Amino acid sequence: MSTHSLDATFAALADPTRRAILARLASGETSVTDLAAPFDMSLAAVSKHLKVLERAGLIARGREAQWRPCRLEAAPLEDASQWIGQYRRMWEQRLDRLENELAAMHRKEKARSRKR
Amino acid sequence: MSTHSLDATFAALADPTRRAILARLASGETSVTDLAAPFDMSLAAVSKHLKVLERAGLIARGREAQWRPCRLEAAPLEDASQWIGQYRRMWEQRLDRLENELAAMHRKEKARSRKR
Repeated sequence: MSTHSLDATFAALADPTRRAILARLASGETSVTDLAAPFDMSLAAVSKHLKVLERAGLIARGREAQWRPCRLEAAPLEDASQWIGQYRRMWEQRLDRLENELAAMHRKEKARSRKR
Repeated sequence: MSTHSLDATFAALADPTRRAILARLASGETSVTDLAAPFDMSLAAVSKHLKVLERAGLIARGREAQWRPCRLEAAPLEDASQWIGQYRRMWEQRLDRLENELAAMHRKEKARSRKR
């Protein structure tokens, strides 16, 4: 898991259009024209986003077919997920604690309103 | 899961110093001075990174104590993890397929070298 590729992966994910492109590619490879269709932006703007994704290794472009289909590359997402996952246990404990505190507060609140 | 906070979370994670700060905070709240110690940069530079993390909601600063300890906030990391997690099944299948293909190639290679 290299530092450089995590930088590029997270930077690439920090944009709603690029995340939407990845979401679309998760269901299969697609032409640039089809990818661009749902977005209210020029083909050039979409191509720019694709280049960021390609440099980060998140997508690859086919070389065979003339329409050069885009497809998702799994490895960088896996690395990003593993990085975040290291802290899962820690944050799950914290979220559990917060939920317990909230539940206790709600119980107290109820008990108090019953007394009134 | 808001679009804006995912943008800010992923942008904040796209830097090795900020990831190292989060990693350090995962083991407990810390003063800015202690956080800055392992880095070869000024306190001002570290403070800048802390501000990015704070704006993204990834850390919070205590208001009580005079040393204003930093602590990790779990929710944005959880959101980021969930976003990536949506595609986990897809990429696991692809990685499995690649591993199977590689294993098959290795078997063929071995069979070929035995024949020679």
